[in-house]
Amino acid sequence: MSFTLHHTCPDTSARTGTLKTAHGDIQTPIFMPVGTQGMVKTLSPDELIDIVGAEIILGNTYHLNLRPGLEVIRQMGGLHKFSTWEKPILTDSGGFQVWSLAKLRKITEEGVSFANHIDGSRTMLSPEASMEIQATLGSDIAMLFDECPPYPCEEKYAANSLALTTRWARRCKEWHQENASKHVPWQLKPEGANLQHDLPQQIFGIVQGSIYSDLREQSAKELVEIGFDGYAVGGISVGEPEHEMLRAIENAVPFLPEDKPRYAMGLGTPPQMLEMIARGVDMFDCVMPTRVARHGLAFTLDGPLHIKNKEFEFDAAPLDETTHPALQKYSRSFIRHLFRAKEMLALRLLSLHNLHFFLRLMQQSREHIEAGTFVEFKTQFTKRYLNQS
Amino acid sequence: MSFTLHHTCPDTSARTGTLKTAHGDIQTPIFMPVGTQGMVKTLSPDELIDIVGAEIILGNTYHLNLRPGLEVIRQMGGLHKFSTWEKPILTDSGGFQVWSLAKLRKITEEGVSFANHIDGSRTMLSPEASMEIQATLGSDIAMLFDECPPYPCEEKYAANSLALTTRWARRCKEWHQENASKHVPWQLKPEGANLQHDLPQQIFGIVQGSIYSDLREQSAKELVEIGFDGYAVGGISVGEPEHEMLRAIENAVPFLPEDKPRYAMGLGTPPQMLEMIARGVDMFDCVMPTRVARHGLAFTLDGPLHIKNKEFEFDAAPLDETTHPALQKYSRSFIRHLFRAKEMLALRLLSLHNLHFFLRLMQQSREHIEAGTFVEFKTQFTKRYLNQS
Repeated sequence: MSFTLHHTCPDTSARTGTLKTAHGDIQTPIFMPVGTQGMVKTLSPDELIDIVGAEIILGNTYHLNLRPGLEVIRQMGGLHKFSTWEKPILTDSGGFQVWSLAKLRKITEEGVSFANHIDGSRTMLSPEASMEIQATLGSDIAMLFDECPPYPCEEKYAANSLALTTRWARRCKEWHQENASKHVPWQLKPEGANLQHDLPQQIFGIVQGSIYSDLREQSAKELVEIGFDGYAVGGISVGEPEHEMLRAIENAVPFLPEDKPRYAMGLGTPPQMLEMIARGVDMFDCVMPTRVARHGLAFTLDGPLHIKNKEFEFDAAPLDETTHPALQKYSRSFIRHLFRAKEMLALRLLSLHNLHFFLRLMQQSREHIEAGTFVEFKTQFTKRYLNQS
Repeated sequence: MSFTLHHTCPDTSARTGTLKTAHGDIQTPIFMPVGTQGMVKTLSPDELIDIVGAEIILGNTYHLNLRPGLEVIRQMGGLHKFSTWEKPILTDSGGFQVWSLAKLRKITEEGVSFANHIDGSRTMLSPEASMEIQATLGSDIAMLFDECPPYPCEEKYAANSLALTTRWARRCKEWHQENASKHVPWQLKPEGANLQHDLPQQIFGIVQGSIYSDLREQSAKELVEIGFDGYAVGGISVGEPEHEMLRAIENAVPFLPEDKPRYAMGLGTPPQMLEMIARGVDMFDCVMPTRVARHGLAFTLDGPLHIKNKEFEFDAAPLDETTHPALQKYSRSFIRHLFRAKEMLALRLLSLHNLHFFLRLMQQSREHIEAGTFVEFKTQFTKRYLNQS
């Protein structure tokens, strides 16, 4: 058992736990910065640890498989060694990028064939191919290969899609059980790796079912029957309104085992994450904090701040009172100048700040759950963040 | 006297020294990374100290005066505080950028009027204006406002230009003596600043005269008569062949005082810098190491390396055997991938590596000058760098 539950909230479903992986322990609830192409955009592995406080990052199977390509990562000893990131890595299955980036998709029982977004050449991703890529990357946690239905989505399409995802889930698990250890670089050569625990690569299922509660229930139950090391809720944050996003979580979580981690994929805003935590979610990932950073947005306790705004021209204050000590010395005035002058340092400082803000929110959530004060914390944080105080 | 000479080479004009400034000591020969808009492109102040080993950086008067504008930097307490860089800063006069970037220049006795490159609005730079801007920025070393003649350049134009530069030099010195201390933020408010020495802002003269040896001599003598804290050789690295660049140094240095620092502006390659050091130059600055980094070029002991090249696809070695320990873990293969994937981290790693390479070359030069082995070092370094070994 790689997940240990510590505390559960008496008045919500919020909980804390420890997720053990080969490359180290992760305290949950946790946010995972996204390292699309092997590293989080604009950042170095060192500052992800020293400033952001990241415990695990996410790598994108679709992107890494296209570039640099699997042969490079295989010969360099896997993604940890290649990217110099020695802490845990979760890889997605590539399914979401096939849906959002690739062109000329053709979905069959076998898998998805598509024209990739870089040079348009045709690639095939199947449950087995995705598992093999993720094993070769050597992530600590691999995600099953699913179909992500769009929003909005007819119930019939969602039901068929879910059935396909379940069949693919079985094939993923089968391939993984029989073959993963023959591909995971640190299982093949543990002596060169920075391993903390004698654990294999883990695999998480993904609950689908769009906005339909019975489908979410069915999907969760079918996946739990197959049996995974953790469970994600997918197909959310794809354009649906916020209450549908929360409902998707509410419809899935009750059917997931207490003793396995739960992961809400691809979201969200700070208040949304607190709502998700209150509904029993343990893990998050999102490109948003780094993407909006590159557009000049900084998260603060008082809500988002647009550093380009004229009001910060002479502002000697740091981005936020809670920013990391290493970032306190940079004034809003200086960062605004760097941003306007198109200096990359601006994007980096905002990315560091935003990720630190997200990771700090997770740490505070853990502390408040353990102290039994999570509900008050969530209420107060959200009130101030949404400027309702 | 802020410059102390330590060693001079018996067999060349190479020498070591210490240049004292208000914000700290600089060991010469030294290379100054260029922080065009307040900070070195892609880098943070922290890594400039921790990894590059920079002792002083250069700020661009032309750029900073346009953006963020003097009023911002004044209200933020000067360039050191604004940019969080607490070590010495040298500012150029803006003259070179007026010549290379601005449009519709009109040079008169008073100064230069031009349309700036950002919004085309007309600005006037005069000796007094340049000095006032540099005093307000609060650099440790200000450069006089000169006219930089193009290459090639008729002797008559060069002579007239030189005469104007000398007249401007007198006005710069006059303004500086009477007014600088009323504008330099850390002289106005020393209590908040991170001062190492009780020294005022210094001002360096700039020897012009194009490729004409008698004009270089005349310019040097006229400037020395006016009297500055140090002397630069300007109007080089503007398109002339390498032997002309070296001749410009040779034609100026003999007429400059032994006990003042000498600064060759805007260059050069590693072998060129060693040749300059052998000819008695103490200080360098150049955008080249960071500019070429952003195009994928890394300096190595065996000459430049183009990280985009296919040959590095599976190369697990670091950029160079001498790269900084913090950069050793990054393989050429990974950096190539980041570069091809347009990840900013690639530009940063190459910038850090290149500047570290330049600063290390300076440190080695100092050590070999002190040990009396500089000539052998220069010969061996250059032979290997140019692949002649």
